[in-house]
Amino acid sequence: MSNPEPEKMSVPPPETDVEGGEPAAATARSSGFGVGLVLRRWKRDDYMRKGSLILRAFGLFFSLLSFIIMASNNHGDWREFGKYEEYRYVLAIAILSTMYTGVQTYKQVHQLQTGRELFAFKNSALIEFVGDQIMAYLLLSSASAAIPMTNRMRESSDNIFTDSSAASISMSLLAFLSLASSSLIAGYKLSTASSF
Amino acid sequence: MSNPEPEKMSVPPPETDVEGGEPAAATARSSGFGVGLVLRRWKRDDYMRKGSLILRAFGLFFSLLSFIIMASNNHGDWREFGKYEEYRYVLAIAILSTMYTGVQTYKQVHQLQTGRELFAFKNSALIEFVGDQIMAYLLLSSASAAIPMTNRMRESSDNIFTDSSAASISMSLLAFLSLASSSLIAGYKLSTASSF
Repeated sequence: MSNPEPEKMSVPPPETDVEGGEPAAATARSSGFGVGLVLRRWKRDDYMRKGSLILRAFGLFFSLLSFIIMASNNHGDWREFGKYEEYRYVLAIAILSTMYTGVQTYKQVHQLQTGRELFAFKNSALIEFVGDQIMAYLLLSSASAAIPMTNRMRESSDNIFTDSSAASISMSLLAFLSLASSSLIAGYKLSTASSF
Repeated sequence: MSNPEPEKMSVPPPETDVEGGEPAAATARSSGFGVGLVLRRWKRDDYMRKGSLILRAFGLFFSLLSFIIMASNNHGDWREFGKYEEYRYVLAIAILSTMYTGVQTYKQVHQLQTGRELFAFKNSALIEFVGDQIMAYLLLSSASAAIPMTNRMRESSDNIFTDSSAASISMSLLAFLSLASSSLIAGYKLSTASSF
């Protein structure tokens, strides 16, 4: 709970003295330490950028699979996804998530290739964090809503309709895991960007 | 995405010079600025601590309500919560959430009164963040799972059983909102504590 940073930062800097050998060495050491910190931080930021891109690409892949599997889940009679509100919910959220992760992945790839941001919003870190978190909640909610009914259906009959539903729900859950992890990185970025 | 902090922090500090009036003034100004930052940060930390306590107390209140309403939801025949796995899930998560938020609230009140931490873990910020986030996901998942069946039941019959179920689910959703907000604060604390 207690934060040691402010104390560290209010320590007075060592005085620069051209005559004495020891204070100069102390200065060099302290500035080397600062550069090391900055370099380490840049490296970590780089890992985070790549990690965030990979997680969003996984999110895109899984949401797209969930969307395609659920949308093609029509086998006549009672075995049509459109007759159940839970499955319509899964499909709607999978489409939303595909669109969101698609835009985010495209944006990040564009930035990695050209070095410029596609949209120059001031609060893009905040938008990313909120977007990831909300999509993660929606994906989890839709998968949770569809699981009990699918479970009950599979107890009585196990056919291509129930199998496809289960596959689509699993893909939604995997997309949820990707976006939940991605929101951790986005949250970290957001809080370090605005911490001082 | 670009982080301005490292540049700011690697600026060389102004040299202290006892002879010249102007550099001394510059030093005073810069140290005053630093103190202002630290004070502002402490104030913000204080708000966050209080906000986190209030949000967890709300989480405890709503989970307890959800737990009590669902546990007393027995009205004979088909109107017993134990016959539906969705409602058993809601009850189980409400109990878990009550226990978790109870311990966290007690811990924070204890710390506020005595100034000491109840458990001195090294990673307590991490544990809090992970705990809040996982409880939020579980609460959302249980509420989402129980909503479709309750909805379908209320279409055919609207009695004390379906009303109590709906009330319990709503309380779970409110507890989810409290814990999701609390996890934002915990995540902020976590990332500022470990950012350098």
